[in-house]
Amino acid sequence: MESGGKVVTLPPSGAINPEWRLYARAASDDKAGVMAILTAFDALRAQNITPSLNIKFLFEGEEEAGSPHIGEIIDLHQDLLTADAWIICDGPVHQSGRKQAVFGVRGDVNVDVTVYGAKRPLHSGHYGNWAPNPAMLLAQLLASMKDRNGHVTIDGWYDGVEPLGEAERQAIAEAPAYDDELRAQLGLARTEGNGKSLLELINEPSLNINGISSGDVGNLARNVIPTTASTVLDLRLVKGNDHKRQVQRLIDHIRRQGYYVIDREPTDPERKQHPLIAKVSKRAGGYNAERTRMDLPISQAVIAAVQSTSKEPIVRLPTAGGSLPLSIITDHLRTVTITVPIANYDNNQHAENENLRLQNLWDGIETLAAVMMIKP
Amino acid sequence: MESGGKVVTLPPSGAINPEWRLYARAASDDKAGVMAILTAFDALRAQNITPSLNIKFLFEGEEEAGSPHIGEIIDLHQDLLTADAWIICDGPVHQSGRKQAVFGVRGDVNVDVTVYGAKRPLHSGHYGNWAPNPAMLLAQLLASMKDRNGHVTIDGWYDGVEPLGEAERQAIAEAPAYDDELRAQLGLARTEGNGKSLLELINEPSLNINGISSGDVGNLARNVIPTTASTVLDLRLVKGNDHKRQVQRLIDHIRRQGYYVIDREPTDPERKQHPLIAKVSKRAGGYNAERTRMDLPISQAVIAAVQSTSKEPIVRLPTAGGSLPLSIITDHLRTVTITVPIANYDNNQHAENENLRLQNLWDGIETLAAVMMIKP
Repeated sequence: MESGGKVVTLPPSGAINPEWRLYARAASDDKAGVMAILTAFDALRAQNITPSLNIKFLFEGEEEAGSPHIGEIIDLHQDLLTADAWIICDGPVHQSGRKQAVFGVRGDVNVDVTVYGAKRPLHSGHYGNWAPNPAMLLAQLLASMKDRNGHVTIDGWYDGVEPLGEAERQAIAEAPAYDDELRAQLGLARTEGNGKSLLELINEPSLNINGISSGDVGNLARNVIPTTASTVLDLRLVKGNDHKRQVQRLIDHIRRQGYYVIDREPTDPERKQHPLIAKVSKRAGGYNAERTRMDLPISQAVIAAVQSTSKEPIVRLPTAGGSLPLSIITDHLRTVTITVPIANYDNNQHAENENLRLQNLWDGIETLAAVMMIKP
Repeated sequence: MESGGKVVTLPPSGAINPEWRLYARAASDDKAGVMAILTAFDALRAQNITPSLNIKFLFEGEEEAGSPHIGEIIDLHQDLLTADAWIICDGPVHQSGRKQAVFGVRGDVNVDVTVYGAKRPLHSGHYGNWAPNPAMLLAQLLASMKDRNGHVTIDGWYDGVEPLGEAERQAIAEAPAYDDELRAQLGLARTEGNGKSLLELINEPSLNINGISSGDVGNLARNVIPTTASTVLDLRLVKGNDHKRQVQRLIDHIRRQGYYVIDREPTDPERKQHPLIAKVSKRAGGYNAERTRMDLPISQAVIAAVQSTSKEPIVRLPTAGGSLPLSIITDHLRTVTITVPIANYDNNQHAENENLRLQNLWDGIETLAAVMMIKP
């Protein structure tokens, strides 16, 4: 029973403390959303309240794997899935705890990169500072991709980004300033972006290292020169980026660092010819960013519905940090998407100890019921 | 039954093919040495041959862990362990297959380095390009330590190195040129050091990455910003280096990159104050390099004994690439050490599939018996 680092005492007579958290894989992402939608609908029915609009449900089970089939499913069932707007329930509310309506998401694509040393592991004494070390090669390659402020130094990385409109810039300016509080909570003395806020930075394309591995560390480490070094990169995209073009910029950058780039293990003749070899593989399922204009009538109606369930001003976000394959939906069905997230921001989404704060689940049910009662 | 990538057919009537290899943990490093010494001694006794000198045996079981107790053992038993010279059996013969006598070893010290991101794992979409990524910080830190030719760029890294004497330079010049063959075998189009040979480079101090780890790669990778990134460094030293001073140069370099350096986990106040924090821990058991002059009478006698068992000219190495705590022996007992290695060079020492070629074991027994018959 943990909340903000303090032990929460058990309430009397078996009541459920709303600060309790459900710890489970996918507790917040996205079991919370699925259960909140279904519970909101059941609650309206139980009260004999008829939703103000026709509602269709779609629960996508492959989103964390890049949604490789959603396009095909939409194409096969266009008649069933056509709608004036899609309301998506995924992601966290604002870090301040305020409710949010979110009008866009980053696109996303993952890339695996492996670089090569000698064909067999070598004793680091007998061959160290003669045989190239792939961990050092990868460190140098990755270091070439970002400066000390976190600015991506790959040519053209920020080209083509569609600027925010007036309504979007205003919404960002009106969002609560929360970066100092976040830095304190996370133990970060400094963040990237030369003083830009988190909300500004998530409207820029990013390059993140999800993981890096070569040889062993800790008690398993031995005095060897490893044979390979691998990393998984996460490229987040914003409106105007194309995921294939962004991956190509990454590959072009790796080539400019002197690498021979292939998408499989190198052959012996290739090893003989090329001092630097990188295996680069784009993972299946990348997709582009999406953003719905905040000045559309449906956008204003959703903002009003969410606001009706909250005393505090809600936060309107042009783009969330997370990614969803919304461009697949809007491209195939010529509709718009608006995201109404409900999870707590400190949910450890995608990591160990993922959790859902109970009050967020209950607030979320209320929020989604209000959205189902929009006056069109 | 594998030899140079070819399948070796079983010889008739149960004979043992000398190209066969014994695969086992420590098969070559250093079970081979222990068994060759004992078998050579037993063989002389079986033939009623009395060694030409008094022989004492010492088998050190902690060498791979940095020999933390050998100094204490030597001090406690100086009377038993005093000797005109120590003959060490460890490491491989020359890559060409020729026998070797080795007059020095590199020193060695390991250092663990961990750098820090946020206190909890973060979703790379919601926080990517705002929260610093420790894997990128570590890549940038490591990249600052070596240039593209493998030259260590840490201030003072090569200072104080004792130059080779005339006999040593001549021995290196007379050693077989084997780098091209090695590069071909290992699948390396280019090696480090701006054209210097392996034998030249192992007479320089090195900096090797044994392993690096942050987050996960492959199928376990997720879209997160990891909380830490860790590496284990292997610093090889040559005559004239001091292992404590070399570690201090590394620490000074990390500080110059803007890091606050500690030897434990950071506290919350430290995180608040320092944007870049590195935990740096020198592992126990580092030691300095050692080198015995090749023009001493005992050096010449050992060279002659090893040469007497080989038709080809043997290789005389001023310094082997590997490390042994020989300076502990020479400092405590005021003696000299000479290494007579026997293992095959392609033994995968310290790594998976470590192996000993049988002919090397048999040749080694012969070599060590000859050394036991040196005319003093």
